[in-house]
Amino acid sequence: MALNERQHSEIVGQSKSVSTTKRATVQALEEILYEPVQVLDHGFVRVIDYMGDDSAIVQAARVSYGHGTKKVNEDQGLINYLMRHRHTTPFEMCEIKFHIKLPLFVSRQWLRHRTANINEYSARYSILGSEFYLPKPEHLAKQSSSNRQGREDVLSAEEAHYVLELLKSDAEQTYQHYQELLNEDGEGQVIDPNRPALARELARMNLTLNYYTEWYWKIDLHNLFHFLSLRADGHAQYEIRVYAEAILKIVKRWVPFAYEAFLKYRLNGAHMSQPALAVIKSLLSGKSVEQSESGLSLREWRELMVLLGRDV
Amino acid sequence: MALNERQHSEIVGQSKSVSTTKRATVQALEEILYEPVQVLDHGFVRVIDYMGDDSAIVQAARVSYGHGTKKVNEDQGLINYLMRHRHTTPFEMCEIKFHIKLPLFVSRQWLRHRTANINEYSARYSILGSEFYLPKPEHLAKQSSSNRQGREDVLSAEEAHYVLELLKSDAEQTYQHYQELLNEDGEGQVIDPNRPALARELARMNLTLNYYTEWYWKIDLHNLFHFLSLRADGHAQYEIRVYAEAILKIVKRWVPFAYEAFLKYRLNGAHMSQPALAVIKSLLSGKSVEQSESGLSLREWRELMVLLGRDV
Amino acid sequence: MALNERQHSEIVGQSKSVSTTKRATVQALEEILYEPVQVLDHGFVRVIDYMGDDSAIVQAARVSYGHGTKKVNEDQGLINYLMRHRHTTPFEMCEIKFHIKLPLFVSRQWLRHRTANINEYSARYSILGSEFYLPKPEHLAKQSSSNRQGREDVLSAEEAHYVLELLKSDAEQTYQHYQELLNEDGEGQVIDPNRPALARELARMNLTLNYYTEWYWKIDLHNLFHFLSLRADGHAQYEIRVYAEAILKIVKRWVPFAYEAFLKYRLNGAHMSQPALAVIKSLLSGKSVEQSESGLSLREWRELMVLLGRDV
Amino acid sequence: MALNERQHSEIVGQSKSVSTTKRATVQALEEILYEPVQVLDHGFVRVIDYMGDDSAIVQAARVSYGHGTKKVNEDQGLINYLMRHRHTTPFEMCEIKFHIKLPLFVSRQWLRHRTANINEYSARYSILGSEFYLPKPEHLAKQSSSNRQGREDVLSAEEAHYVLELLKSDAEQTYQHYQELLNEDGEGQVIDPNRPALARELARMNLTLNYYTEWYWKIDLHNLFHFLSLRADGHAQYEIRVYAEAILKIVKRWVPFAYEAFLKYRLNGAHMSQPALAVIKSLLSGKSVEQSESGLSLREWRELMVLLGRDV
Repeated sequence: MALNERQHSEIVGQSKSVSTTKRATVQALEEILYEPVQVLDHGFVRVIDYMGDDSAIVQAARVSYGHGTKKVNEDQGLINYLMRHRHTTPFEMCEIKFHIKLPLFVSRQWLRHRTANINEYSARYSILGSEFYLPKPEHLAKQSSSNRQGREDVLSAEEAHYVLELLKSDAEQTYQHYQELLNEDGEGQVIDPNRPALARELARMNLTLNYYTEWYWKIDLHNLFHFLSLRADGHAQYEIRVYAEAILKIVKRWVPFAYEAFLKYRLNGAHMSQPALAVIKSLLSGKSVEQSESGLSLREWRELMVLLGRDV
Repeated sequence: MALNERQHSEIVGQSKSVSTTKRATVQALEEILYEPVQVLDHGFVRVIDYMGDDSAIVQAARVSYGHGTKKVNEDQGLINYLMRHRHTTPFEMCEIKFHIKLPLFVSRQWLRHRTANINEYSARYSILGSEFYLPKPEHLAKQSSSNRQGREDVLSAEEAHYVLELLKSDAEQTYQHYQELLNEDGEGQVIDPNRPALARELARMNLTLNYYTEWYWKIDLHNLFHFLSLRADGHAQYEIRVYAEAILKIVKRWVPFAYEAFLKYRLNGAHMSQPALAVIKSLLSGKSVEQSESGLSLREWRELMVLLGRDV
Repeated sequence: MALNERQHSEIVGQSKSVSTTKRATVQALEEILYEPVQVLDHGFVRVIDYMGDDSAIVQAARVSYGHGTKKVNEDQGLINYLMRHRHTTPFEMCEIKFHIKLPLFVSRQWLRHRTANINEYSARYSILGSEFYLPKPEHLAKQSSSNRQGREDVLSAEEAHYVLELLKSDAEQTYQHYQELLNEDGEGQVIDPNRPALARELARMNLTLNYYTEWYWKIDLHNLFHFLSLRADGHAQYEIRVYAEAILKIVKRWVPFAYEAFLKYRLNGAHMSQPALAVIKSLLSGKSVEQSESGLSLREWRELMVLLGRDV
Repeated sequence: MALNERQHSEIVGQSKSVSTTKRATVQALEEILYEPVQVLDHGFVRVIDYMGDDSAIVQAARVSYGHGTKKVNEDQGLINYLMRHRHTTPFEMCEIKFHIKLPLFVSRQWLRHRTANINEYSARYSILGSEFYLPKPEHLAKQSSSNRQGREDVLSAEEAHYVLELLKSDAEQTYQHYQELLNEDGEGQVIDPNRPALARELARMNLTLNYYTEWYWKIDLHNLFHFLSLRADGHAQYEIRVYAEAILKIVKRWVPFAYEAFLKYRLNGAHMSQPALAVIKSLLSGKSVEQSESGLSLREWRELMVLLGRDV
């Protein structure tokens, strides 16, 4: 597992320390609090803290809409209503904080989500760890010819071996040189007095983008759902999608009603354009429609037909 | 007190319900959780939930800066360091959620702080309560002639009486007419069948700006400090400053080290312009400096002299 | 029209002043630059400045996606693609600045859109104008019984007369008292020396929520589309919807391709939940489906049937 | 220079195309519009578009504060006043859009400024260029022993040679392998049919952090000043500071009054803590003060003495 010794002993410490609180508390999430969930070869996601639960969403909504009875089925109904009508502010009333370890090239995509709080491990201050990401052979795929940002066929075993050897040797070599440039033991003690100890903020530029970094990432539930709707989607790169999937499972423990509503109304739903709606109406009324007269491009037409379970 | 019956019984319920948690927990804040702190005549601030404590700030900083010993004095020292050097992201790792009742004209200033989550009571959906703000006589002051956004002399008892009568009668009259326009009991039952029951979203426009509204307001500690630095300042309007002061006391319970650092380095500090620094240097080296040659305007000069404890 | 004399002469001045620029420039928008478009009885929207055009969206996208030919039809195709796949960042590369005059109760809804820059007329510093909103009789409607935030039947002429008289007399009275409380001519000169001149920041609380305020509002095109998708929608309150509609016409002049894409893929499209998609598939394959077994609530079922042009 | 052929011909095209506009226009900025300013060995900053000028700041402020005469010296005075009193919203009314080419490790710091719009060159879609950053010998420095995030002594010529050779050979090797992994000509044509053409989104992970990326970066003036106050500061890493300095010169052309105010009141000013103010007061009244009784740490004391021009 990807935790270092200090982190491991910290987790043991945190897991033992129990307090009483009047705050909203979710037992299913408490069970896995601080525990790392492994992602990729050296990465992880673990929950550090959280605020609120399904009831907190309902409670915030009722500040706006007034009050009524509070049976469980009504709570779920209200959460579905909020999700469906894009009443997003009650979901902002829940907050979660993660500790995440992830490859640098994944962190660059992740950072484009601006509505979150981040504290990242700084290679200006500290020395980056020696772990880098190496894909499993089954995730090594060729460039897609139809989709410029996608993958296609998986490489053969032989091809994969060639690629992995190359990635591995370059990563190891750049890290070895990174250490030579630093020329110190992490406490500021020079190792080889005949060579310079280059500033950390400079030496880091020699590392490749598959090295792992770490951060604390704190976000509200509404913005987390937005992140998940983009990153748990089939179009997302595999290496970030697995993080999104790990987080989805955590969300299910945390706010099960909101999770169900998110799946039903957003992740597993679909947005229809104006001409797509017209096509469906025509089809339902028994008319035949041709792509050429539909107002849809060929690609849009095909995607709609797939969505409707029809032959393309 | 400004809580209605439903809110009161809710608080009693919440205060009794205690859970165990592995999360960071602050006993001094738990003691007042859910309890309203009165502000103005009918307003209040109460803490609904919180995430993190002083240690969470330190822990987030150490993700970035690396790790060392963790004695209490070092935690405080690190928090001071972060505050002083404007390393703001660790403070973003703490979050707090308030339930606040406040006059509409105060809410309009408050909303300009955009980096927060809000759920406001909606007068489109529900009927606004009958409470309005009436200043205490000692807070009724004349327009300042020197400061276009300020107050000056307090009104005489007679003048105050005249003003308060006028504010009171207009507020009461517009609310009575609001109810006539609504012409319903809050459950949608028409009261007088001979008059129309105007849509709530329209009727509300007849209310004056001193009526109270309510909201949930959730914000991270860094942005809360920014809010407090502007609204707990002497230049802020009295009616919002009292809210900021109530929140300051809550912050002191929640994150005492961060609170001390905020007072020391921000709220009770001062920013010096380039020419102000030059003036101080000259004075310290024994030279006399005149305002006219200082690069400071007359007003800047006076404010600097006051700050330095010198005769103007 | 709702412009005061100073504003009018400013517009005349601005409209005459013409410069040369190498920046992206849109003639159709230049034609109406600075010109107020009337909204409601005393409100307006006018464009003060803008940055970018349809080509700027394309150019920003091509920074990300690489480059190809640049025929007009390809630009439009790329913009459609971006809108459809929620690639929102290229739309953020366009920016527009409005001067808007609007009733206070509308401004309170508007402010909930946080990702924008605002400078509002301050009643702390200045004296608010005497204009208030009075709905046209045809926009005075009863509270909807089915939709707690909606309107239903329009009032009769007699009922409308009663409502308007009441709104008008209260607004006029509170403004008259506002002036009495201020007791100054706007330049700080006291009018009646026997009465106090109350601080502006206090006197303003006596005004009703239908008084007009003004602001500069600056926003990028992506966030403007989000605003429009919520506020040009049929569920939005009439009094904010008319502003959204006025802005939609301006957007059509400014970025015609992006405007068309927004209508086609968002405003006139619809989001389908997972069970709604399943219902459509079943219907298309000739099966009959009942609401009770569809996974849709009665309301969701009805809305879907309306959308598909079927009898409910 | 770091522009490729396509970019160069684009600039020539843009610079020739001139339109007339009624918008606020700044001739000093028009002169350098689209022209790249070189930064580091292969980077650049160039202005693509802008909105507003010094007058736009004043005009927005006057929406809030009311109106008066508009002589030039009053405009400058008002801008100074706004900067000094942290009235930030008028500065948000100006916007600027840059095209920037910068090393990946610099882009990672830059991205922490979240209140901006970005379109970055995507190595998922396209093939990254072959340029990487190599510091000049005079910018290669040893790790500071006192400041964990800083540099100290410059390397000797011999040491620098060793470091540069190492950085250069690793960058060249990883790029060569990147090309081997891609095994295509950029148009999707495979080069060597005996090797796989790895997906672009995977191949990119083999590059080192000194490779250059490009983006469009759009930001309002207030947030740009915040960026500059942190990144044009002496504590910022050299490689991002040079970008901030290049942007400062551009800001000087664009909004000269705001630029002067920023230097005077922020960049060249200093924030004093509460105990620092007390020390200054004591010194001015002729008392001697010791660090040990000042409430300042040793480091704070030294920094204050340097600021006041006194012996430490």
